[in-house]
Amino acid sequence: MIASLAASFTGKLLTDPADTTSFLTDWRKTWTGTALAVAIPDSVEDVASIVRWCAAHDVAIVPQGGNTGQSGGSVPRADGQNIVLSLTRLNRIRAIDPANNTMTVDAGCILQTVQEAAAEAGRYFPLSLGAEGSCTIGGNLATNAGGTAVLRYGNARDLCLGLEVVTAAGEVWDGLKGLRKDNSGYDLRDLFIGSEGTLGVITGAVLKLFPAPAERATALVGVETPQAGLALFEAMRAKHDTALTAFEILSDQCLGLVLAKVDSSREPLTARHSWYALVELSGSDVREGLEVSLADALEKGMIGDAVIAASTAQARDLWALRESISPAQAADGGGIKHDIAVPVSSVANFIDEALAAVQVVYPDIRPVIFGHLGDGNLHFNFSRAEGTASVDFARETAHLNGIVHDVVRKYRGTISAEHGLGVLRRDEADAHRSPVERTLMRALKTAMDPQGIMNPGKLLP
Amino acid sequence: MIASLAASFTGKLLTDPADTTSFLTDWRKTWTGTALAVAIPDSVEDVASIVRWCAAHDVAIVPQGGNTGQSGGSVPRADGQNIVLSLTRLNRIRAIDPANNTMTVDAGCILQTVQEAAAEAGRYFPLSLGAEGSCTIGGNLATNAGGTAVLRYGNARDLCLGLEVVTAAGEVWDGLKGLRKDNSGYDLRDLFIGSEGTLGVITGAVLKLFPAPAERATALVGVETPQAGLALFEAMRAKHDTALTAFEILSDQCLGLVLAKVDSSREPLTARHSWYALVELSGSDVREGLEVSLADALEKGMIGDAVIAASTAQARDLWALRESISPAQAADGGGIKHDIAVPVSSVANFIDEALAAVQVVYPDIRPVIFGHLGDGNLHFNFSRAEGTASVDFARETAHLNGIVHDVVRKYRGTISAEHGLGVLRRDEADAHRSPVERTLMRALKTAMDPQGIMNPGKLLP
Repeated sequence: MIASLAASFTGKLLTDPADTTSFLTDWRKTWTGTALAVAIPDSVEDVASIVRWCAAHDVAIVPQGGNTGQSGGSVPRADGQNIVLSLTRLNRIRAIDPANNTMTVDAGCILQTVQEAAAEAGRYFPLSLGAEGSCTIGGNLATNAGGTAVLRYGNARDLCLGLEVVTAAGEVWDGLKGLRKDNSGYDLRDLFIGSEGTLGVITGAVLKLFPAPAERATALVGVETPQAGLALFEAMRAKHDTALTAFEILSDQCLGLVLAKVDSSREPLTARHSWYALVELSGSDVREGLEVSLADALEKGMIGDAVIAASTAQARDLWALRESISPAQAADGGGIKHDIAVPVSSVANFIDEALAAVQVVYPDIRPVIFGHLGDGNLHFNFSRAEGTASVDFARETAHLNGIVHDVVRKYRGTISAEHGLGVLRRDEADAHRSPVERTLMRALKTAMDPQGIMNPGKLLP
Repeated sequence: MIASLAASFTGKLLTDPADTTSFLTDWRKTWTGTALAVAIPDSVEDVASIVRWCAAHDVAIVPQGGNTGQSGGSVPRADGQNIVLSLTRLNRIRAIDPANNTMTVDAGCILQTVQEAAAEAGRYFPLSLGAEGSCTIGGNLATNAGGTAVLRYGNARDLCLGLEVVTAAGEVWDGLKGLRKDNSGYDLRDLFIGSEGTLGVITGAVLKLFPAPAERATALVGVETPQAGLALFEAMRAKHDTALTAFEILSDQCLGLVLAKVDSSREPLTARHSWYALVELSGSDVREGLEVSLADALEKGMIGDAVIAASTAQARDLWALRESISPAQAADGGGIKHDIAVPVSSVANFIDEALAAVQVVYPDIRPVIFGHLGDGNLHFNFSRAEGTASVDFARETAHLNGIVHDVVRKYRGTISAEHGLGVLRRDEADAHRSPVERTLMRALKTAMDPQGIMNPGKLLP
């Protein structure tokens, strides 16, 4: 059977377990599946051929980009007949139109390659996240990735004007338009974005570009409470509007973990504070604006202390503190993670209330709370109490998830803000969906993929 | 039969022709249909009851807001059994959360009411268009309205975080989330936005608010060619980034028509130019920035002349020139209109090429070309040649549409940028759709509205 698949396209087909293993497990080694083969197409036509072959043989297709997802969406199931479809060879920058501020790319382009190509054209592609050196833009779009520039530029969804998709019938939908306005039918683009490969395979995209910011100014600010962080955010946004390009927070426990586990890290301020905000302004003359705003906040007692990066290297070091939290938590034995969002106005209350609810049950648990305060999106994570084994703590995952997510629902938030449902949040999301929403989503899946071969078991149960 | 509909909800039901007439014709009197009745629900539950009644009796529902659309989407068919569903009584501002920068509204709120409620809360809701005094936010969302603030703030789609929709089964989908990030399933919100009432009835929405701009600066600039207009746009955007909140163009023929037909209008510059750009900056100290940029452009010979509004009243007068073009064209006997978009980089070439193509066939036709250059969206309109009767000119509509739209397609543009397909562009859009796109859109319609009762014959044939 597989021989006929190999003959149906020009790219590579891997069947030897020595070659396929890395495609069958996610990077955190949380999920492992099986596959008849890993198909690595060379072209969009190849992708269409492979999908048609899978449809004819009733075999499931698992589209995969950099395989860096956090929710298991790009890993095949452990049962059933699966083909992993790796988009990594579709990696051309097809065209750049600087005057239209657009770039047309293959889905398999590495995010960092896209960023660099934009920079070479004197433009800026703002999507930025930890995995940018290995994730693909197709994966970013399939999961509607977030990251650290959402506050100003939006999610991956907001950065895409057009798509090319191979449908579940193995046909190529050419929606590669670079238009700012287009009301000529249903919004197929946004339906495919964030659908985690369950409705079709994204093979290309038209991305929005922006003027490269003239200058960046970065500060780390010590505050005593999440409320104080939120008040600072509101003041900065009111004053700096779109020049405010990032507003992240992290707890002192996060900083402590990074300082303990990451050799190159060092104390950013002369004293410790309960919370820190990482603030970035972009534009012309933003350094002076940041200095004035923070001096004003200090004088008003809104903040405890602040350091403004004096150089690009120092700014990078401040960002490294933020970006080292996940690796530091991993080095400490991992933890139980959440990717929640609530209205921005509720972030501080949410933190207080959810933390209290967790600590009633787990008094010695170590909170590792950080995230994108300006987007209302927190990685509301926890590490095991001292003296508790990782394996015992891991058993508490469902219980702890339930405590945190109950508070999320109280604030009309989401249990999946930027990582997608995959298999990780699939069942919980579905259990709390209204019947009408469940019916609508199921109807869309059936309409777009009647045979049920597109990444089955992901996003929806 | 209608008695049972009247009994099924608490709002008003109009059946007397004296009451229903205004609901059966669009404001430009282009289309007129018939209806069994006009239902005016008082609540979301009423809307659901009416839809369930229509489903049970296999009667079509035509959702209607302010009935100000340009494409006939809110007018019932002239045959078949239709109920017009007027959302005008669902007109409450439900909640404002200034710290989250969101407002939750009923679909029947007038756009201007929404703008004013935002202003009262110290915020800004940027959607702005000619009909804002009578169009509803539900209609704006159902058609993904554009307008004059798209350059900085996006279309209606980009201004909406959550929706409440009554489905074709008469159930209420509560998607009223006020979240900046949410990846917890298929993007139902964007599927309903722009679907012109053919998939469900929008009854409520969570809208994005913004900080109110500190100051606005407006200028009218004379340029000799569309190329010069595009070059000015690029220079302004590179320099002012998000402070550039509007960049409109109009031809000298447009200005001449307004000066001839609108009493209060007067010459904005000392001499006439072939084209004009209406430029607006918003933010802090933008007036000085605008002065410097335009002085620089004048010195470089990029522009012929410019006037910067010295007062709010003068700014309003400049905007009035732009907004009076459609009424002036109507007063001149109407015209043949287009609502096209191309990549911004192609706007000037498109104008040259499409104009030449039209003038080969209609040498004496009078072009009335204006629009949102910064969005690539032009109202590429024409008035009849002197001495041609309006009725004779109107007969050329399909032919002229064809000439213009062929050039649109060459540039991978759209024939419906901001007005939607309705019945006006429905068939032409479908004729030029790829078979795969046609199949996908048809599948979505069937999945969401299996009975085919939601605004049938609109958007899709």
